[in-house]
Amino acid sequence: MTLAVTARAAAADEREFRDRIDRYRLAHEAAIVRALDELTRFRSVAADPSGVAAAADFLAAALRTRGFEVRLLSAGAHTPPLVYGELHASHARRTVMFYAHYDGQPVTPSQWSSDPFIPVMRSAAVNGAHEIDWQHAQPPFDPEWRLYGRAASDDKATIAAFLAAFDALRALHRPPSVNIKVAWEGEEEAGSPHLAQILDENQRLLGSDVWLIGDGPVHQSGRPMIYFGARGVLGLRLTIYGPVKALHDGHYGNWVPNPAAMAATLIAQMRNQDGVVTIPDFNDAVRALTSAEREAIRDLPPIDDQLKREFGIAQAEGSETWASSIMRPALNVRGIRSGMTGEEAANAIPVDAEVSIDFRLVPDQTTDELRRCVEQFLRNRGWTLLDAPPDMAARLADARLALLEWEPGYPALRSDMSSPVASAIIRTARRAAAGPVALLPMMGGSVPLYLFAQRFGVPVIGLPIVNHDNNQHAANENLRLQNLWDGIDVYAAMMALLDW
Amino acid sequence: MTLAVTARAAAADEREFRDRIDRYRLAHEAAIVRALDELTRFRSVAADPSGVAAAADFLAAALRTRGFEVRLLSAGAHTPPLVYGELHASHARRTVMFYAHYDGQPVTPSQWSSDPFIPVMRSAAVNGAHEIDWQHAQPPFDPEWRLYGRAASDDKATIAAFLAAFDALRALHRPPSVNIKVAWEGEEEAGSPHLAQILDENQRLLGSDVWLIGDGPVHQSGRPMIYFGARGVLGLRLTIYGPVKALHDGHYGNWVPNPAAMAATLIAQMRNQDGVVTIPDFNDAVRALTSAEREAIRDLPPIDDQLKREFGIAQAEGSETWASSIMRPALNVRGIRSGMTGEEAANAIPVDAEVSIDFRLVPDQTTDELRRCVEQFLRNRGWTLLDAPPDMAARLADARLALLEWEPGYPALRSDMSSPVASAIIRTARRAAAGPVALLPMMGGSVPLYLFAQRFGVPVIGLPIVNHDNNQHAANENLRLQNLWDGIDVYAAMMALLDW
Repeated sequence: MTLAVTARAAAADEREFRDRIDRYRLAHEAAIVRALDELTRFRSVAADPSGVAAAADFLAAALRTRGFEVRLLSAGAHTPPLVYGELHASHARRTVMFYAHYDGQPVTPSQWSSDPFIPVMRSAAVNGAHEIDWQHAQPPFDPEWRLYGRAASDDKATIAAFLAAFDALRALHRPPSVNIKVAWEGEEEAGSPHLAQILDENQRLLGSDVWLIGDGPVHQSGRPMIYFGARGVLGLRLTIYGPVKALHDGHYGNWVPNPAAMAATLIAQMRNQDGVVTIPDFNDAVRALTSAEREAIRDLPPIDDQLKREFGIAQAEGSETWASSIMRPALNVRGIRSGMTGEEAANAIPVDAEVSIDFRLVPDQTTDELRRCVEQFLRNRGWTLLDAPPDMAARLADARLALLEWEPGYPALRSDMSSPVASAIIRTARRAAAGPVALLPMMGGSVPLYLFAQRFGVPVIGLPIVNHDNNQHAANENLRLQNLWDGIDVYAAMMALLDW
Repeated sequence: MTLAVTARAAAADEREFRDRIDRYRLAHEAAIVRALDELTRFRSVAADPSGVAAAADFLAAALRTRGFEVRLLSAGAHTPPLVYGELHASHARRTVMFYAHYDGQPVTPSQWSSDPFIPVMRSAAVNGAHEIDWQHAQPPFDPEWRLYGRAASDDKATIAAFLAAFDALRALHRPPSVNIKVAWEGEEEAGSPHLAQILDENQRLLGSDVWLIGDGPVHQSGRPMIYFGARGVLGLRLTIYGPVKALHDGHYGNWVPNPAAMAATLIAQMRNQDGVVTIPDFNDAVRALTSAEREAIRDLPPIDDQLKREFGIAQAEGSETWASSIMRPALNVRGIRSGMTGEEAANAIPVDAEVSIDFRLVPDQTTDELRRCVEQFLRNRGWTLLDAPPDMAARLADARLALLEWEPGYPALRSDMSSPVASAIIRTARRAAAGPVALLPMMGGSVPLYLFAQRFGVPVIGLPIVNHDNNQHAANENLRLQNLWDGIDVYAAMMALLDW
């Protein structure tokens, strides 16, 4: 055969592969959605340890049924287990670790249009959508339908796609091209406090040639996406103290320090109006982008105008594109609360102000160094840092009192976009999609990629599948069905076509 | 008689007068406290119009019983009435109007140690105090006891003192030295939205030679106080808009504008860390203090260190004394709310931020001019001002959207401290107290003094009686009994000794 004939044959084989996966999916849409629905019903959020444990048992059984060797790896009796599974393929040279998390963000049910843990199918995004009785609908389903529920997309959709893709390959008698390992984490949304320990204690078991991370959304253009890193994260709760009791702001306003105003000033000092963190030394460790990374960003489909229309914003915070912005570190104000507003507002100086912040880190910032910068900045501005609420003596000794509660956090990672495995994955993803794939050097959101990279010394590459407009981390989280279908295609390809 | 003999005789008469009032009070302590307790039980707050109406009827009856001609003056069927009463004294040359308000600030019952409308007597300030069954206690009561309840001090204590003083004079057959008028307002804590109309419609009825205002606390040193004005007030609710839905702050933080950070920046731009309002033109109309006013401030007993200890603050906001600080205009942040804090915080960019502000005005600032300054400042900073929440078109058209909701407000007033009536009142108060009286050119808190001054062209002078540490406008408002007793002394003197 000539090279051209080989290429044509390979292309035909790939089309055939994709068609067969799609036919399998078409014949099993109801069962696949039912599996995701079932998984979403588990209350696997940090506030509900028994819900997390039940989900882990369910997933372990799902893997065992499919012939995986399974273990629940945990850091202690009452910590959420990591569901580990492995399946050896004959003749495979490489081992791929498929990572996702099965826990979800906390919920504020009053903000949801329906119960976060009783999935509801809707015809489109929640406003103006109608509910669909999909259990009695005739497949094929409208691919624009969305399943609403906490973690339905982040990351339970990835897990559902993986299992459906595996089932499709088995039904088609298509052997895996790689050894398959699975690591499904149960406390990613809580900051992965025990993941390092679990990885350390199971380093041999968890060895592979690449970690493939199923967390995060695809590109906002709808194009399939691969990402090569993610920003790190570090949360901080800051409480600023005013007078020991609320005081009439007519009699004492201008003289008694106002903690709401102090908190506002502090935020404005830490971050300018372009979203640039202005804390001294904060940006010192920021690693410059490589030319390949800059090129990848340039090649991304333009989506800024679309996002602005979707989010209802006239302008971005700074002058950069979305993709360039998220290559920088961020200081996000997640919340601020002091005194009362609206009808309940009284003419009083509040007793304190609470500010909830998360920092997003980029390589090579470390959480320790960032904490040091923030604390040094506060001390230089005259703040006394507390680790417990002040007593009267502390209040009388120092004028600016701030209680700092740091949350667990972790650094960022950017993997090399040009390594052999990265190239193989890009190639395979393009085949599965039969089209272009967006390449993002680093996600804006955080997943603890550095933990895998640090310990295993292998590339860590992201292969998300869910829609970007999924209300991730907010109320009315949802998964668009077409993204689940595309996810099955790409995960099937990674299990049956990937090699390098 | 020589002058010295006359003076001695007058002094003896004054001592005798005070002693007789005190003896009356000692014999009637339980009944006087019971009257205040009864008055405090009326839920006369803006949120409860029927509670306000019931309190007005009760007060009207209390005046009628004492021989007053009484009218309820209101601006319409469903607005809180002003309770008006008058009593002519034979041979009196002057008419004194006694003003107070019988409505209270809104309550947040969860913040109170007991029901705001079921008064409780405690041995001292609320922490560490024990409850006292005063109804079964043997008078005389401990003068350090405090009665807890909304409006128990602000201003129902003034009303109770006035009525008890009047009863004492009648029991002692002491005729009034002035014609007495009473104006007890029912919506002062709501910003007195109808007071101007009521005054306009009853201008002849309400004529007098001086308005004596029973609102506010005495000096923090405990010394009796007269004030000659009060800062004005203007409330503003500001809502700042972010994205139309909450967005993952990892994926979009740094690019999607964060309304909490925008609100913080805005506050920091409007007000510096010394509490000085930095809005351009805002301070242009501020009238300088006269030398008499500066002298009065210098002569006040020093109380700053005492206040700091009481409030648990190490430093004041600026470098001035408390009394000097409140001669300046203020921008108070009453509350701020955006996103979630604490355990409920999610990694999301909030959809909006609410800021509740009140401005405290000084002469000759006007509310119109102040509104203009604030709005011009916002426009100059690129804000688009809204009077309703933005629709999608408005969101896409302008980057900085702020909904402004101005509350009703009014300007400040400072009366001449050297007028004949001011001198007579100072003299009479010193006699009632048998000691020095603190003279404050202007209270920090707001009462609508300007309304009286503007219409009636007579001095408006404040004669407060309640303890400064009364938790006014906050939870656990309370009245210290000794302040009620002192209030009876001074109000009796104003009714029976005042003349000029």
